[in-house]
Amino acid sequence: MARFLKSKKELIGISPDDILFKGEQKVDKTRLRLIDYNLDEFHEMELNSINETIESLNENNTSWINIDGLHDTSLMKEISSHFNIENYIIAEVLETHKRPKIHDYDDYIMLSTKMLQYNAETEKIFSENLSIIFNNNTLISFQERVGDFFDPVRERIRKNRRRIRNSGPDYLAFALLDIVVDNYIHTVSLLGEKIEELDDELIRQPSTDNLEKINKYKVEVSYLRKTIKPCREMILGLCKLDSELISDQIQSHLHELQNNIELANESIDNYRDILSDQLNIFHTTVAYKLNDILKFLTIFSVIFIPITFIAGIYGTNFDYIPELHYKYSYFIMWGAILSTVIVMITYFKRKKWF
Amino acid sequence: MARFLKSKKELIGISPDDILFKGEQKVDKTRLRLIDYNLDEFHEMELNSINETIESLNENNTSWINIDGLHDTSLMKEISSHFNIENYIIAEVLETHKRPKIHDYDDYIMLSTKMLQYNAETEKIFSENLSIIFNNNTLISFQERVGDFFDPVRERIRKNRRRIRNSGPDYLAFALLDIVVDNYIHTVSLLGEKIEELDDELIRQPSTDNLEKINKYKVEVSYLRKTIKPCREMILGLCKLDSELISDQIQSHLHELQNNIELANESIDNYRDILSDQLNIFHTTVAYKLNDILKFLTIFSVIFIPITFIAGIYGTNFDYIPELHYKYSYFIMWGAILSTVIVMITYFKRKKWF
Amino acid sequence: MARFLKSKKELIGISPDDILFKGEQKVDKTRLRLIDYNLDEFHEMELNSINETIESLNENNTSWINIDGLHDTSLMKEISSHFNIENYIIAEVLETHKRPKIHDYDDYIMLSTKMLQYNAETEKIFSENLSIIFNNNTLISFQERVGDFFDPVRERIRKNRRRIRNSGPDYLAFALLDIVVDNYIHTVSLLGEKIEELDDELIRQPSTDNLEKINKYKVEVSYLRKTIKPCREMILGLCKLDSELISDQIQSHLHELQNNIELANESIDNYRDILSDQLNIFHTTVAYKLNDILKFLTIFSVIFIPITFIAGIYGTNFDYIPELHYKYSYFIMWGAILSTVIVMITYFKRKKWF
Amino acid sequence: MARFLKSKKELIGISPDDILFKGEQKVDKTRLRLIDYNLDEFHEMELNSINETIESLNENNTSWINIDGLHDTSLMKEISSHFNIENYIIAEVLETHKRPKIHDYDDYIMLSTKMLQYNAETEKIFSENLSIIFNNNTLISFQERVGDFFDPVRERIRKNRRRIRNSGPDYLAFALLDIVVDNYIHTVSLLGEKIEELDDELIRQPSTDNLEKINKYKVEVSYLRKTIKPCREMILGLCKLDSELISDQIQSHLHELQNNIELANESIDNYRDILSDQLNIFHTTVAYKLNDILKFLTIFSVIFIPITFIAGIYGTNFDYIPELHYKYSYFIMWGAILSTVIVMITYFKRKKWF
Amino acid sequence: MARFLKSKKELIGISPDDILFKGEQKVDKTRLRLIDYNLDEFHEMELNSINETIESLNENNTSWINIDGLHDTSLMKEISSHFNIENYIIAEVLETHKRPKIHDYDDYIMLSTKMLQYNAETEKIFSENLSIIFNNNTLISFQERVGDFFDPVRERIRKNRRRIRNSGPDYLAFALLDIVVDNYIHTVSLLGEKIEELDDELIRQPSTDNLEKINKYKVEVSYLRKTIKPCREMILGLCKLDSELISDQIQSHLHELQNNIELANESIDNYRDILSDQLNIFHTTVAYKLNDILKFLTIFSVIFIPITFIAGIYGTNFDYIPELHYKYSYFIMWGAILSTVIVMITYFKRKKWF
Repeated sequence: MARFLKSKKELIGISPDDILFKGEQKVDKTRLRLIDYNLDEFHEMELNSINETIESLNENNTSWINIDGLHDTSLMKEISSHFNIENYIIAEVLETHKRPKIHDYDDYIMLSTKMLQYNAETEKIFSENLSIIFNNNTLISFQERVGDFFDPVRERIRKNRRRIRNSGPDYLAFALLDIVVDNYIHTVSLLGEKIEELDDELIRQPSTDNLEKINKYKVEVSYLRKTIKPCREMILGLCKLDSELISDQIQSHLHELQNNIELANESIDNYRDILSDQLNIFHTTVAYKLNDILKFLTIFSVIFIPITFIAGIYGTNFDYIPELHYKYSYFIMWGAILSTVIVMITYFKRKKWF
Repeated sequence: MARFLKSKKELIGISPDDILFKGEQKVDKTRLRLIDYNLDEFHEMELNSINETIESLNENNTSWINIDGLHDTSLMKEISSHFNIENYIIAEVLETHKRPKIHDYDDYIMLSTKMLQYNAETEKIFSENLSIIFNNNTLISFQERVGDFFDPVRERIRKNRRRIRNSGPDYLAFALLDIVVDNYIHTVSLLGEKIEELDDELIRQPSTDNLEKINKYKVEVSYLRKTIKPCREMILGLCKLDSELISDQIQSHLHELQNNIELANESIDNYRDILSDQLNIFHTTVAYKLNDILKFLTIFSVIFIPITFIAGIYGTNFDYIPELHYKYSYFIMWGAILSTVIVMITYFKRKKWF
Repeated sequence: MARFLKSKKELIGISPDDILFKGEQKVDKTRLRLIDYNLDEFHEMELNSINETIESLNENNTSWINIDGLHDTSLMKEISSHFNIENYIIAEVLETHKRPKIHDYDDYIMLSTKMLQYNAETEKIFSENLSIIFNNNTLISFQERVGDFFDPVRERIRKNRRRIRNSGPDYLAFALLDIVVDNYIHTVSLLGEKIEELDDELIRQPSTDNLEKINKYKVEVSYLRKTIKPCREMILGLCKLDSELISDQIQSHLHELQNNIELANESIDNYRDILSDQLNIFHTTVAYKLNDILKFLTIFSVIFIPITFIAGIYGTNFDYIPELHYKYSYFIMWGAILSTVIVMITYFKRKKWF
Repeated sequence: MARFLKSKKELIGISPDDILFKGEQKVDKTRLRLIDYNLDEFHEMELNSINETIESLNENNTSWINIDGLHDTSLMKEISSHFNIENYIIAEVLETHKRPKIHDYDDYIMLSTKMLQYNAETEKIFSENLSIIFNNNTLISFQERVGDFFDPVRERIRKNRRRIRNSGPDYLAFALLDIVVDNYIHTVSLLGEKIEELDDELIRQPSTDNLEKINKYKVEVSYLRKTIKPCREMILGLCKLDSELISDQIQSHLHELQNNIELANESIDNYRDILSDQLNIFHTTVAYKLNDILKFLTIFSVIFIPITFIAGIYGTNFDYIPELHYKYSYFIMWGAILSTVIVMITYFKRKKWF
Repeated sequence: MARFLKSKKELIGISPDDILFKGEQKVDKTRLRLIDYNLDEFHEMELNSINETIESLNENNTSWINIDGLHDTSLMKEISSHFNIENYIIAEVLETHKRPKIHDYDDYIMLSTKMLQYNAETEKIFSENLSIIFNNNTLISFQERVGDFFDPVRERIRKNRRRIRNSGPDYLAFALLDIVVDNYIHTVSLLGEKIEELDDELIRQPSTDNLEKINKYKVEVSYLRKTIKPCREMILGLCKLDSELISDQIQSHLHELQNNIELANESIDNYRDILSDQLNIFHTTVAYKLNDILKFLTIFSVIFIPITFIAGIYGTNFDYIPELHYKYSYFIMWGAILSTVIVMITYFKRKKWF
């Protein structure tokens, strides 16, 4: 399947209300984690079913349900009915190949985005879908696989950093998105470093190796662009949202989030331009080196071709070649050869060929 | 006729109210299919004339009239008069070469778009016009040829998937457009896969074959772009429409439709950039290989040209060439030749030519 | 004078109210045609002066005055005074080199645009200025030369196609613009066909001929773009106009007109991209062929250079060359030569040079 | 100093209210000209000081004070105090390197723009700053040097072309800007003509001369673009201005002015694209010619290299070369040579190399 | 770390309220300077702690606290509490790698931007973060290192240039930003000068040196673009701000500031285009020179190859070569050689190869 756009023929024409997993299964078993907190209390537990989860919820607390692995459609249906979320919203959570989006309802807000992972070894970037649904006291996050992505937030909740423990799911949603966006910036900067390193070698020693790197990075930058651009739109939508579920206090945080995604976005465009420039520079350098090679060949050929001809003339076996019989003919020939060489070299020097 | 823009001289200046078929006839006989349903009832039949159709319509049900083949202008005129649709709207349905559009009237909404078909063998994409006219209880869809494109929707209606049977022509219109757009995404992804496959070969083994593929895919991507871009506009227009004929419930579906066409659109731009990059990389690789070829030629020439000259000198037939008569002259010449070769090779090694 | 932008030094600083012909005279004599009609009546006549025209006008009918040839400034002044049109509007009609524009006054609307003509032989496109001024019962059209461009409209009026005979000058203006825009589309499609035909030859047999065509078409596409883009703006302005002179009924026609000019415009951008791609493909193909040529030369040179050297060695006339005197030396030399050739060929085969 | 952007280090951080000349002095002495007119009266005089000017002003007339040369800061301060113009506005008039701008105050409007001059000999374009300040009865224009740029306007005032004598400073300001913009169009068209002329030579006879021209024109087009783009913004601002100082009657003139600057602007973009295309065509042509050159070289080399080798073989001095002694050997060699040549030529013909 | 985008993994997921220094420490010790002034009074002092500063503040004066060096987080916390600034605002001041931004609160306005420094020797541009927080009587500026950037403003305050001494922190903020933007323009113009200088050499004498410069300047222009673009956004935001902290009088100054940043921005885009053109011209020139080199080589080879072959023929040792024995054979050979040469030269002359 194409890396940049995934689509399955058999899913075309399916009802938008059908809760069907439309992505690739990335974990064996779905994992359910619950963190339940307010300023004073804090509970963290791993659960087996959504029923169990519901029982553990405390209505006055903020509850964060983290679901890793989306293939369990029966679980999804339970979530839909327990939390009173429309079927097609859950169906969209399961469409992991679709674009980031934001839906705003009276009771809850649903948003989805992509998380990025940079594999330093293969220098490839992978993306994973993240969906978040939150109402006034619960946030459910849906990830495709188990990861430590959000550990800093868990840590902040555990350590009672006042702000987060004192706030509702809107602040939590912001905190999660903040990590996602910071990670975008970090991923871009990791790739950017590699791109900037290329710069010095291109003119001095152009090699197929450089060319392969430029090509590779170009593909990754395209992938980043394709992933981050629509996420930017989603965050812009979130900032403009006029919902009661989002308290005024986090508006400036959202503003900052927007500023950060803008930074990621601009930097990608920046690196894209730089890569295009690098390719152009590379190409031009290669063309320039070609001139050098051919100047070299031409100088050599042009010097030796006439003198070889001169020698050839006196290698002929005609009965009557008067020059052959003068005593100093041979040296005169040498003289002619040397003059030719000198004339040639002077000519090339004047043309600044070397 | 051009593939990207079709126009017939004889149709210029025709009155917009004239019901004239302006496309190419793609089927022999127009086919009329009627599906008539509500939550409880379901009728599906193939009909011969529009009169027969009208009789079969049940006003309280949702009726879907599917017309395959547009060349029968008398049928079109009947539709115009029976359903009270202005002549120029029907005339626009018959202009299959024009852009997707949307017209919003009090009684009905008319929209047209393009359906795409990917021929896996020729790797070419074809498009067909689709027009939809619907009022509060009837939807008429006009296709250029008979196809199984909308079978998933028919299946959903037949199987009484509650949502679709319970909704009016607006939901049906959405369901049809949804398939159209999902198909865009699928078509783009099929082409995209081919494009991504190209990536590996370009640097290692550039061949005319690759070049032809790049060219071919570029044309197809242009064709996709040209087809999908205006359709995106149409769907944006549909989302912004403030019509009584569109119920509030399907607003979020339209929102999702818009998100999907955006995905198709973005992906095309993505693949377009990738193809341009590939062409650049290809060109640069070819230029780089040229350097290799010419380094090879130059090294060989530059080594052999002077030593061939040395041999040539001693092939001359001058009466008096002192060197010829020393006993070891021949071996000295070999020595000179070998030194030249060694000097040359050292020089090239230092210049890192090999 | 430049083809893309015409400007005369002596016209700089002229008062905008001066009625002066600023273009090139394209006909000898101005031709005045009047068509006067309502649903029942129809008069068509060729006239000699504007006074004569005025007399023939029937206030309750729709009158279409067609003026071919703009150099007769006294006629223009008469029009200005008879129809109460401000001097600078008539002055703008005479500025045939300026951009399409639209002016909306209480009494009349003035609009100007360009008509295109494709010369199939020279494959060049020419443009001519068209200005239209209409009030509630009269439309005056100004063309630079006599032509059959609007014959389909005249035909429709003559044949009493109800719609046009029943409508006022606004519908007539639309009908004229419709022909202009349909002609744009047709012109683009004619050029487009030529461009698409180029596609197949480019990789298989690149020739200067192709290159010249690409260049030529690029210029024509630029010309089309330059001409159609501002016309699109004018039509958008017309659609947004809130004037009593434009009846509600023709709004959807204007909408369609806009859709058509959009089609022309998009297609031009499309063909422009295609031409750029073709040029890139052409260049890359040429670079690729160069590699082939030079591989060929290199293989030949690299094989023959060393063996010619071997022969050269034994053409020297040293007194003492031991090898010369062995009986099989000559055949050994041949052996050496053949081995060299085989080694070389094997080497190139491995490098996949042929 | 850079031609495209001028900046002086010592002027950084200066108070915006300081009346300091920040450009380059282009005339020795400031020249003050006053034209004072109404429908009946007309006075034109050259003055020495601003006091003298003030005395000559007639409040009921329209007065046009033209100042050529901006280095006299004491004069500038007098203007500031006499006409009650804020210091920083006068300071901006003196910043001749800044962008065109428009300031709208209750009492007066200040606008600045660039005037262009095309030097036909060097084919270079120069720009000069023009600032205009006008209130309800006086217009002051500030130019960097004495010129005949606005003579047509002076002529119109002198000859009592009713419109201009009957209008206030707003019409005068329009008339001046009209000349500026017409001159833009003219300058672009002069350069455009040169660019279009290039087109024919590029493919048939590409030369460094062409390349230098393309480069030169590209720089000039960039310069034009850089100058005209911000002026367009200024004029758009002027059109949108809702000031009592601008009478309704000149709105359509401003509209037309905007249309003209749009024309200049579009044409520049047009020529820019054409130049880029020309450079691409040139490059591709050069690459194509290279193939021709190398085909030629390759054909020649490939034909002669083997036959020279054959001759070389029989130039060896081995004691025992059986072929040398047959009577017809020499002719057989010629036969072999000719066959080789024929085979080669056939091969190249088939490959369509010539 | 990448130059274009800096990001530290360990800072991902940190609470936005944490006052942590996130940049690189550029000075050893934080420096605190206070300037306190009104129209009559003026105090300037260097202080050790924020407490000391607070004591020195006079509420009726305008106070400017300049902080150089941001690593002292305890100082930052003091500022936060003394001036009643929210923690996350101070936290943002410490994020020196983030984008320019503007926050508008009832009590204070916070804005940040980048200051540029051009190192003439390395031809590299460096940027430093500047944050400004001001309320109705105090302005705090935060810089990363000690510099003389704002000395002109200090000078103006000291010398009692009336305007600045008479205004509040809003005017001071403008004055600081004005210097920043003027410096942008100056930096761009310095680089621009270098770029324009390149122009002449490119076609006459293309060298790797030029290529390296183009590459270098391209990187710097990208860096400038990346830095200035978001600053432009910030200033646009500032101009649109509707805050009581910004008096009406400085609106026109802000307008001018915006005009200046636009100038910087446009010029960068200008130079970017010029550099791209230069690279293209360079590449094309190199390709053109290649043709010259190879024409030279081809002419030489094509002339000498056949005549060397002729000489080779008569160097063969066949027993029976009739031509060898005619008396004038040798001269006839010379005749043949010269004819060949003349034919060749005529051929090349006709093809206009030299």
